[in-house]
Amino acid sequence: MATSSSPAARRGPGAKSAERRRSIVDAAHAVFAERGYNAGSFQAVADRVGMSQTGLLHYFPTKSDLLLAVLQRRDEVSNAATDPSAGFAESVLLTAQANERIPGVIQLYAVLCGESTTADHPARAYFTTRFERLRAGTADELRALQREGVLSRHVDVTIAAASLAALWDGLQLQWLLAPEEVDVVACLRDYLDALFARP
Amino acid sequence: MATSSSPAARRGPGAKSAERRRSIVDAAHAVFAERGYNAGSFQAVADRVGMSQTGLLHYFPTKSDLLLAVLQRRDEVSNAATDPSAGFAESVLLTAQANERIPGVIQLYAVLCGESTTADHPARAYFTTRFERLRAGTADELRALQREGVLSRHVDVTIAAASLAALWDGLQLQWLLAPEEVDVVACLRDYLDALFARP
Repeated sequence: MATSSSPAARRGPGAKSAERRRSIVDAAHAVFAERGYNAGSFQAVADRVGMSQTGLLHYFPTKSDLLLAVLQRRDEVSNAATDPSAGFAESVLLTAQANERIPGVIQLYAVLCGESTTADHPARAYFTTRFERLRAGTADELRALQREGVLSRHVDVTIAAASLAALWDGLQLQWLLAPEEVDVVACLRDYLDALFARP
Repeated sequence: MATSSSPAARRGPGAKSAERRRSIVDAAHAVFAERGYNAGSFQAVADRVGMSQTGLLHYFPTKSDLLLAVLQRRDEVSNAATDPSAGFAESVLLTAQANERIPGVIQLYAVLCGESTTADHPARAYFTTRFERLRAGTADELRALQREGVLSRHVDVTIAAASLAALWDGLQLQWLLAPEEVDVVACLRDYLDALFARP
């Protein structure tokens, strides 16, 4: 029974397992950030974390499981890194700038996101939920800015929230294919400047 | 020598082969439009066009070859369907409306586009070129609208061209995952209205 276990016992195997899981995901994040989607292999992740492929498969039975865990970690890291004192637009631009330094992870995101639109894809639920939350969260932030008088009340925040997320994803796709020609941050800044200048 | 062949002979096997290719691509377009990326199989395409899988493989050795041909056909159909008398914004919205009726083809586009960002993917050159042309073509159209005084000269047409393509792709991704919640046409209209209203 949980209540009769000592704190140490309760932290025991479960906590160790969670720690190991975490270090695998960190290693996988680093491997995909360095090598991209194709070259990032189970073996490379196992090597980096110092365990066998069989050991790794115990934690993540398929490549999809591991890739999803990397994307979830990316969401956590990204949320934690957001400076609460930065304004809405500034936070978006800072995150977009940070993403330019991890093209391998952005590529992983782009591949899985595209594939997730097919029926029964293992990442479909993750992306559906991610976009729902992202749209709802952004709409809430924009509504607050309308109350503060920073954003025009004529802006449809539901449309703006979906559009900002869409613009960002689409720009990253073009940037992955032509990094010298597409400036994600400049395009996002242009959209946000125009949004906040609306009468 | 080409000049010594009769017109019929010149149309001969080459023309037949081109016709056959064309009917395969039409059949594949229909199959993917109906069934989507996963369920759209070589066998289903072969059945529809009335040939064997082996015969089909003679024209399209891999699924990637066939999928790319479907996307190229989609570009042709989309360009041909554009009403030259319709304005820039109206053409975009009409195409976006038409896309809502072929989610299977849009899904095919989304999957291949995401996957094309990986090194050595067979669709990488197609998407890189497609985006280059799309950005250049849209920027030209927007520049013409600036000369006509319809669009503010303060709009950066390079940024607007990349952004419009990006917004559209990103919206379609979200729409494929949540068709009841994301209104691609409404979001594109909102962006274009705001763009043409810029001072």
